[in-house]
Amino acid sequence: MGRTGGMMKTRDKILDCAQRLFSEEGFDKVSTKRIAKEAECNEVTIFRLFGTKNRVLEEIINKFVEESKIIRSLHESLTGELEQDIAKSILLYQNFLHQHEIIFRLQLKLSDSENQKFLRTIDFKNYLVDHFIGVFHEHKIHYSPETFVNDMLSSVMGSFLLKILTQGKFTGERDGHFLSEKIKFYQNSINQYKKTE
Amino acid sequence: MGRTGGMMKTRDKILDCAQRLFSEEGFDKVSTKRIAKEAECNEVTIFRLFGTKNRVLEEIINKFVEESKIIRSLHESLTGELEQDIAKSILLYQNFLHQHEIIFRLQLKLSDSENQKFLRTIDFKNYLVDHFIGVFHEHKIHYSPETFVNDMLSSVMGSFLLKILTQGKFTGERDGHFLSEKIKFYQNSINQYKKTE
Repeated sequence: MGRTGGMMKTRDKILDCAQRLFSEEGFDKVSTKRIAKEAECNEVTIFRLFGTKNRVLEEIINKFVEESKIIRSLHESLTGELEQDIAKSILLYQNFLHQHEIIFRLQLKLSDSENQKFLRTIDFKNYLVDHFIGVFHEHKIHYSPETFVNDMLSSVMGSFLLKILTQGKFTGERDGHFLSEKIKFYQNSINQYKKTE
Repeated sequence: MGRTGGMMKTRDKILDCAQRLFSEEGFDKVSTKRIAKEAECNEVTIFRLFGTKNRVLEEIINKFVEESKIIRSLHESLTGELEQDIAKSILLYQNFLHQHEIIFRLQLKLSDSENQKFLRTIDFKNYLVDHFIGVFHEHKIHYSPETFVNDMLSSVMGSFLLKILTQGKFTGERDGHFLSEKIKFYQNSINQYKKTE
């Protein structure tokens, strides 16, 4: 350990502080000086470890992408049972957004050209479309899996963003209630498209 | 008029120039010096009238909120016919977001503490909940109007934000198609909750 251990700790501390500051105040408003102060290190240490403030941001996002196990969770949870899989898709996506709220807040504040945003959401969507193609076929659901998945994820994402952007004013304190109603709504709605003959 | 009139004109000119520059080049890339040059005034005038560049942005957003006629459009469009009103609610909200995309992009980038965000969306939601309480009652729909409106608006907002944040990668070029499918989906779904006896 010794020196290397110490350096790792500083590195992580810088990343943690930078992530929190960027997401609260925006990437541009937070200086390396400020990050250094929060991480209780010298500003020069940030430059030595990362080079630039942009590289600090890249590390934060890379770390998040690597650590995200969202597709594996989907793979392990979905069974092919229509209503259960709808519930699980909504809950997993909601949990994923909730757990990484800081990263999403941060991404919202990046310049439009700066970064490929919400790549995990696109992966998540593609995985679910492939999955529901099979499930809809099996359950004789005559509805476009792509349209269904798009709408379901948009709705979860929209609720999540409206909640954080309005600081809870959109649905008040009843998010849990609305989430379980959302699940029922999608389950009931898709059953309408079942061919019964 | 005299002095006051002159000050008002400068103020509006600064706001107009800033809005155009922010939307073309992004908030962070445009300096107060640049705004001053475009508005043909001294940079000091901007600081005297607004204090900071952030306050200029806030004024732009406040102005937009005051001038937004979204509730009046709703009031003029909704008739009490269930399926038509669902279609109109979705289309009006979608058009509202689309028309003011620049303002929304700007709002996403503001510090979390800085601004009350998406206030029009909350007004829009409250208006629709009140409206659909009556419409659901009239059409014997046994479903919570609040849950329905929350979900419908979240879905439209989510699609809109996913589109702009992924630069079109979420649904590709088929937004129009997904929007009309979304309308049909909500219309069909709510009809399930009709009490027929």
